[in-house]
Amino acid sequence: MRMIDLIEKKKQGDKLTYDELKYIIDSYVSGLIPDYQVSALLMAIYFVGMDDIETTNLSKVMLESGDSLDLSSIDGIKVDKHSTGGVGDKTSLVLGPMVAALGIKFAKMSGKGLGHTGGTLDKLEAIPGYRINISDEEFIEQVKDINIALVGQSGNLTPADKKLYALRDVTATVDSIPLIASSIMSKKLASGADAIVLDVKVGNGAFMKDLESARDLARLMVKIGANCGRKMTAVLTDMDEPLGYAVGNSLEVIEAINTLNGNGPSDLLDLCVEIGAYLVVDAYKASSIEEAKNMLLETIRNKKAIEYLIKLVEKQGGDISYIKDINKFPKSKYVIEIKAAKNGYVSKIDSLMIGHAAMLLGAGRSKLEDKIDNSVGIVLNKKVSNYVSQDEVLATVYSNKNNIDEVLEIIKAAFIISNNSEIKSLILEVIK
Amino acid sequence: MRMIDLIEKKKQGDKLTYDELKYIIDSYVSGLIPDYQVSALLMAIYFVGMDDIETTNLSKVMLESGDSLDLSSIDGIKVDKHSTGGVGDKTSLVLGPMVAALGIKFAKMSGKGLGHTGGTLDKLEAIPGYRINISDEEFIEQVKDINIALVGQSGNLTPADKKLYALRDVTATVDSIPLIASSIMSKKLASGADAIVLDVKVGNGAFMKDLESARDLARLMVKIGANCGRKMTAVLTDMDEPLGYAVGNSLEVIEAINTLNGNGPSDLLDLCVEIGAYLVVDAYKASSIEEAKNMLLETIRNKKAIEYLIKLVEKQGGDISYIKDINKFPKSKYVIEIKAAKNGYVSKIDSLMIGHAAMLLGAGRSKLEDKIDNSVGIVLNKKVSNYVSQDEVLATVYSNKNNIDEVLEIIKAAFIISNNSEIKSLILEVIK
Repeated sequence: MRMIDLIEKKKQGDKLTYDELKYIIDSYVSGLIPDYQVSALLMAIYFVGMDDIETTNLSKVMLESGDSLDLSSIDGIKVDKHSTGGVGDKTSLVLGPMVAALGIKFAKMSGKGLGHTGGTLDKLEAIPGYRINISDEEFIEQVKDINIALVGQSGNLTPADKKLYALRDVTATVDSIPLIASSIMSKKLASGADAIVLDVKVGNGAFMKDLESARDLARLMVKIGANCGRKMTAVLTDMDEPLGYAVGNSLEVIEAINTLNGNGPSDLLDLCVEIGAYLVVDAYKASSIEEAKNMLLETIRNKKAIEYLIKLVEKQGGDISYIKDINKFPKSKYVIEIKAAKNGYVSKIDSLMIGHAAMLLGAGRSKLEDKIDNSVGIVLNKKVSNYVSQDEVLATVYSNKNNIDEVLEIIKAAFIISNNSEIKSLILEVIK
Repeated sequence: MRMIDLIEKKKQGDKLTYDELKYIIDSYVSGLIPDYQVSALLMAIYFVGMDDIETTNLSKVMLESGDSLDLSSIDGIKVDKHSTGGVGDKTSLVLGPMVAALGIKFAKMSGKGLGHTGGTLDKLEAIPGYRINISDEEFIEQVKDINIALVGQSGNLTPADKKLYALRDVTATVDSIPLIASSIMSKKLASGADAIVLDVKVGNGAFMKDLESARDLARLMVKIGANCGRKMTAVLTDMDEPLGYAVGNSLEVIEAINTLNGNGPSDLLDLCVEIGAYLVVDAYKASSIEEAKNMLLETIRNKKAIEYLIKLVEKQGGDISYIKDINKFPKSKYVIEIKAAKNGYVSKIDSLMIGHAAMLLGAGRSKLEDKIDNSVGIVLNKKVSNYVSQDEVLATVYSNKNNIDEVLEIIKAAFIISNNSEIKSLILEVIK
């Protein structure tokens, strides 16, 4: 097999076989095929595409390029969720304890967040003492013991994806649906769960800018997972505003705690219940989505869910006094209110701008080496469809820096205020 | 400017400006942009294409990446020709002396041939003593003095093209019409001629397999040259059989000498007269193509053309006794005849197979380091549309190797013999 022939084959629109993809990925990881041939192939894939079978095979060979986690020693259905990345997305912190409280094994490995705001791991690290790196054995024991573990990726999971992603990032080949799908799914398959719900964000600020391409991506990922024997659901959700009110690591943990205590934003809770319901049904704990939703809501009413968050934090070395008293989280030096310039309805809150502003405050990374400031961020006071009067507070900014006029301008500009209100549904579509 | 943004721009189908292309090419040549970004861009160009202006600008920035030859000290119109590469193509050896004999300045620089058979330079080197490497000053003086010089590329001509071509060769991005056009035209522009005729080969064995893509390439190259103030003509010629009878370096030189002595194959002479006529008109030596053709044929009848070949060889240090007595060229050890298996008309002689067979005999290079054996090759006894009886000789093979059954099989298989004859025109189309 010669790489140039395979590039030519793909360029001509033909399909690559499992063996061909295996040869490409293995040779690339071991350094036998150079970057410049792989980037040409990636660009050809961008233009020509790959079908379900090819994308499944690409996911498989990427999965096989490294270690994968064997969760078979844990009884029952192991569940996982994945989000394509949203601003203010603290779903895992809320959803995980809720399903764990129903006796379902929530075994989640996450990567470090890069981009607007921190990832799940960064949020967890805002809790003093929380260890995100634990061994595979501890991980498995913990899931057996308390039904839940939220940890960083261990071992050498999908090295092919890491290398390919770095190359895509510098060759303008990130936005290819089969490449996105195989990248996400290779990691999800490596994490070993039996049932997976994917939260595919749609809109400005999301990977997928329009419903149609989000649907294509979701369908393809569901297909890949199903081809590999996993129970799959994809939920398409709107990103026309951040999820919940809080953006920034401590602020989001506090919002997650509030939600588990029954005082959270309705959009966040709705999304957790929706995603959770598919996991509950897939784990055979309920026979209908409606029943599952009621069971999940009950975990908040009966305080079981918050109890599981405390168990999780305790088990992974975190200081549970912070969960019990959110006032213990460190405060930022400065608190600045952003006020509306006119009366009207909030018709949109640009997630990308809010995320970018949060990153500038220090809540996220632009490079992997960047240090995150956990206490900073933004709390929205108004959400889409809310009425706002002139000079009413739109958002509160938490900062440790003084000169942040540029950031405040970005946040202000993120709020679009118009004369009429339109209510949009957060959950756009569900694909099984 | 960032390379990734320019890849994205091209990928989206937008046009790259002169400044953007300049940045890309200069940064690539100086090593500031890595191969893997350029190969992604090349693949995007393969899919999206480039328009006339972009391709002109790409040719210009590649030209500007290195030295170029200033022929302005030579009076009158300087002419040049280029072929996209044919099997048995010894046109320059015949055409050059013919136009030089009419007082036209034929100033041609060639690259070394890579592929089936030798290039013009390899053929010239079959004449003992012929120096292909002379200084730019000598080159210019020689053209002033005897109207003709046929030399190898000097100095640092289009280093960008060399680097890009090497990358295209290993990333399956050779067959992009704008990339082929800008590669050829950057070199032609660097060689400094005022009037250029391009011989674009069509058919199996040629770069362009079909008339339509050959026409696209020809039109684009004519446009690029015209945009840069050159007088351009492209002649589309059929490659359904090798040009003339001889394939192999000494054999082709002998055929060129025979042609200049009035004993050459009619297809070769016709092509030289056709191409030459446009150069004669562009150099203001004739007012019509018909007149120019008659003038060119007269250079053979009055022996002026062969006289100019002798002047050329003498000036560049070659032994002219070989030109005067073709029997002096060394003979190969073995001479093998290939005979027809059945009666019929020759309907095709696969150029690619003949070229490949010649290369296997040692007449061409598969790697740049390969040594060429000048005495070996193939002489066709039959051409397309000729009738052949069973056991009549189809071709004569000149070899210095003994075990060449495989080569003989290839040559035999290259001849397609059928029940009816169809006469095709060698010159398919002329584009001004």
